[in-house]
Amino acid sequence: MELKMNIAELQAFLDDAFPQVAGDFEFVSIAPKEVVMALSASEKHLRPGGTVSGPSMFALADVSAYFAILSMIGPVGLAVTTNCAIDFMRKPGPGRLLCRMQLLKLGRVLAVCEGRLFSEGTEDVPVARASLTYSIPPSDKST
Amino acid sequence: MELKMNIAELQAFLDDAFPQVAGDFEFVSIAPKEVVMALSASEKHLRPGGTVSGPSMFALADVSAYFAILSMIGPVGLAVTTNCAIDFMRKPGPGRLLCRMQLLKLGRVLAVCEGRLFSEGTEDVPVARASLTYSIPPSDKST
Amino acid sequence: MELKMNIAELQAFLDDAFPQVAGDFEFVSIAPKEVVMALSASEKHLRPGGTVSGPSMFALADVSAYFAILSMIGPVGLAVTTNCAIDFMRKPGPGRLLCRMQLLKLGRVLAVCEGRLFSEGTEDVPVARASLTYSIPPSDKST
Amino acid sequence: MELKMNIAELQAFLDDAFPQVAGDFEFVSIAPKEVVMALSASEKHLRPGGTVSGPSMFALADVSAYFAILSMIGPVGLAVTTNCAIDFMRKPGPGRLLCRMQLLKLGRVLAVCEGRLFSEGTEDVPVARASLTYSIPPSDKST
Repeated sequence: MELKMNIAELQAFLDDAFPQVAGDFEFVSIAPKEVVMALSASEKHLRPGGTVSGPSMFALADVSAYFAILSMIGPVGLAVTTNCAIDFMRKPGPGRLLCRMQLLKLGRVLAVCEGRLFSEGTEDVPVARASLTYSIPPSDKST
Repeated sequence: MELKMNIAELQAFLDDAFPQVAGDFEFVSIAPKEVVMALSASEKHLRPGGTVSGPSMFALADVSAYFAILSMIGPVGLAVTTNCAIDFMRKPGPGRLLCRMQLLKLGRVLAVCEGRLFSEGTEDVPVARASLTYSIPPSDKST
Repeated sequence: MELKMNIAELQAFLDDAFPQVAGDFEFVSIAPKEVVMALSASEKHLRPGGTVSGPSMFALADVSAYFAILSMIGPVGLAVTTNCAIDFMRKPGPGRLLCRMQLLKLGRVLAVCEGRLFSEGTEDVPVARASLTYSIPPSDKST
Repeated sequence: MELKMNIAELQAFLDDAFPQVAGDFEFVSIAPKEVVMALSASEKHLRPGGTVSGPSMFALADVSAYFAILSMIGPVGLAVTTNCAIDFMRKPGPGRLLCRMQLLKLGRVLAVCEGRLFSEGTEDVPVARASLTYSIPPSDKST
């Protein structure tokens, strides 16, 4: 399978479709069935002590999975998260928080992704892992 | 087991310990091993179409579990989420989004909570369900 | 919604479709969107000390969810588990292990169930909780 | 970190501690923080059509995680599964079912593992993915 969108197209889609969070996330790299995104953490993403909050880590995993799928199927706005299982393992250190998300299955109605969150430069010591299922809308009304 | 904190004490702890999100959540009711909280949804919590975002639902489940535990053990700031499994089942309708969270296990090192999110007035048709594990810090250094 | 199968019909379907495990599980009660099943634990389900094994608890949750769905949609053999999140909270005590499983969502392509496992007589102290997603096959080729 | 047990020691521990399932699983390879195990599927592990059952896949993931941990901490019999999230993505094909399980975190009280199940020879198309948390018993009574 080949990518149907490049980083510029994915970024444009993000800016357009999710204006509330567009500035929070950026694309680091994409490849077939794999996307790396980063959280541009600001005050609202942090907890006391400067640690990135759980909901912000969930959001990074969720948006990474969404774009791992979209990069393969094209700009379909209606894919929705149906399930997420996330393990928080360590406190993120200083520096950017990244997520490498892989697309494990792209079925007719479901897509399954799995990824790890890590502070930049320490990918071998992930701070969290997450698996997500997305429901894919029918591609047209005849399906 | 009896409650160690009432709503006023829980709200004060929330306001003090989590100033970034304090205005986002409010307590609806508490009872031994059960808390009901509400999301005061504002623009930042919404997605296109006015639907509450997944990360906001995760945040509501997470904070509800945290306070279901704290209400039973007292104001211990160091409990941390280690795992969450969440299923998004329906789009929330208009109106306040609530979460009824139950404490299923309060062990020496782990607490397990389970709850459902629903739009006010339609608790029988939950929009999401979530289960969370928290790691409880040792109560003193001798443990 | 009403039940489409009664206990005798569910038991007959179980015996017929899953002969390998048919003797392992029995129906305790059914109601719309809720089934209670029991594990008839034998040597193969136990771990050292006589505790029911994790895989046996998973199996009980899985079969309970399957029949919570089938009782509502009729004897469709092709529903398959796509996701399960399970928390093991306590060691089961002696006596029968039961699972009360609820159907939280029955959609066009996905069904979501949530339930708790407990030793007979102590439902208020569950030994495990589980949530499962099933993929529902299209009811006919035109869908 | 280095391995504290080799395959022969792990196999001996499995045979001794879990006689009911000892013949069901075998070690394929071990390395620091990673174990590959295989299910020796027999009739009891199969569903109609010859597919490996969900509970058998759960069991393979669970035992693989257990030994990924034990290989690093030594033969401690009391580690217990506290959580598992598993996604079933495809039906296993014919041939041996394997699980490559990685130890992502080995903490004082919790260990987190993540792995994928696949039919021998097609590791790039996993049939399932699983993440598991184990609770680690204190290493001695003074802790």
